[in-house]
Amino acid sequence: MELRITGLTGLPEIRAGDDLAALIRAAAARAGLALDARTVVVVAQKIVSKAEGAVVDLADITPSALARTWAAQSGKDPRLIELVLRESVRVVKMDRGVLITETRLGHVAANAGVDQSNVPGTDRATVLPADPDGSARRLRDALGCGAVILSDTFGRPWREGLVNVAIGVAGLGPLADLRGTRDRDGRTLGATIVAIADELACAAGLVMRKAEGVPVALVSGFEWRAEEGSARALIRPPERDLFR
Amino acid sequence: MELRITGLTGLPEIRAGDDLAALIRAAAARAGLALDARTVVVVAQKIVSKAEGAVVDLADITPSALARTWAAQSGKDPRLIELVLRESVRVVKMDRGVLITETRLGHVAANAGVDQSNVPGTDRATVLPADPDGSARRLRDALGCGAVILSDTFGRPWREGLVNVAIGVAGLGPLADLRGTRDRDGRTLGATIVAIADELACAAGLVMRKAEGVPVALVSGFEWRAEEGSARALIRPPERDLFR
Repeated sequence: MELRITGLTGLPEIRAGDDLAALIRAAAARAGLALDARTVVVVAQKIVSKAEGAVVDLADITPSALARTWAAQSGKDPRLIELVLRESVRVVKMDRGVLITETRLGHVAANAGVDQSNVPGTDRATVLPADPDGSARRLRDALGCGAVILSDTFGRPWREGLVNVAIGVAGLGPLADLRGTRDRDGRTLGATIVAIADELACAAGLVMRKAEGVPVALVSGFEWRAEEGSARALIRPPERDLFR
Repeated sequence: MELRITGLTGLPEIRAGDDLAALIRAAAARAGLALDARTVVVVAQKIVSKAEGAVVDLADITPSALARTWAAQSGKDPRLIELVLRESVRVVKMDRGVLITETRLGHVAANAGVDQSNVPGTDRATVLPADPDGSARRLRDALGCGAVILSDTFGRPWREGLVNVAIGVAGLGPLADLRGTRDRDGRTLGATIVAIADELACAAGLVMRKAEGVPVALVSGFEWRAEEGSARALIRPPERDLFR
């Protein structure tokens, strides 16, 4: 199997109300790249949030005492901390300057997807799209490609560095279950459920350079079983979560 | 930027003492694939362990009381549990049938890299190579490629499914520090250190199918700053680890 992963350049700065699919289609056409049923399009959450107007003016935010105290301890903007708390349903860890929470959609991450980078104006921040699977589905339908993944960049416990993960999915089951299959010696493979949507997001991350404005990557050559899919399948249910 | 990620097929079953680099070179030549300074070769830990003889005969293992008790609770082979404990320096979590430990090299994972899949014979298991960076370095030198990553498949807290990660690295710094760079609006990017070795391992994971015997992937088109590198850089130091 051979994959080709191409970063899509030439997208303009995205504004609320922009037709993101039309802009992606035009950029792909200029680059001579196909958007067909065998293509997975990985889109950075940031430009989806911008297109959907999921941008918050920090001047409108009054920080709570909790946000002010934590901001003072961690040297951050109390309005940003307040926004992180508003985007969250549960604080997982609040320690040594790191605030890790569970977002409304169930993803556990630092800063709940609130991000100031690449947002024009100094006093604005993006939040995660309200329904990332829905955003992915609308993009997939409009682009006519096989699958769309909305990606964000998360840290991980125990390991340094950020990696891309899938927070929205359409057209692809995010988990590939190899449990039924057998290895070369005929032994049934034990617990081999692979998070292919996260691996696709990571692969795309290698060509999506934040600073260079490459917020979209096209993956061709990947084979998968088409299904509606949802990034919710990537979230471990509480009863199996050892790190709540 | 365009990446090409190709799974290398046609490798034989690897045995202790095999010249893995020669076998990879021959398979790449048969497939017409270049192994040059711009190629990253991702190799599954499993075949490196086999070539290095890091295979344990379970008949030689006498399980401790701890291993026997946990095995009975979790329905596993007590000799395998004993082997996991011997490969570990710290138990991070032992709960609901899941045993998560820190390996001698500092990686935190379920089962400490002990694995029975794709190991011929029913009573043998592979353990991680003793020095994965060293294994990667020897392979890189023998292959003449730009970088080698040894990959393994780990679970993650909070998220379902396994993903490939880098446990050994040569020729590439596993973390790409984008902190100095500025985004499109001239704002300095905050904490953007990307774990490119893990993202490369994930990308390779998409073409490395365990059951189909594709334990090597070649990545071309990726640009990186050449340096000796070590997978140790991916391990979060205890003072920054909130989930010990």
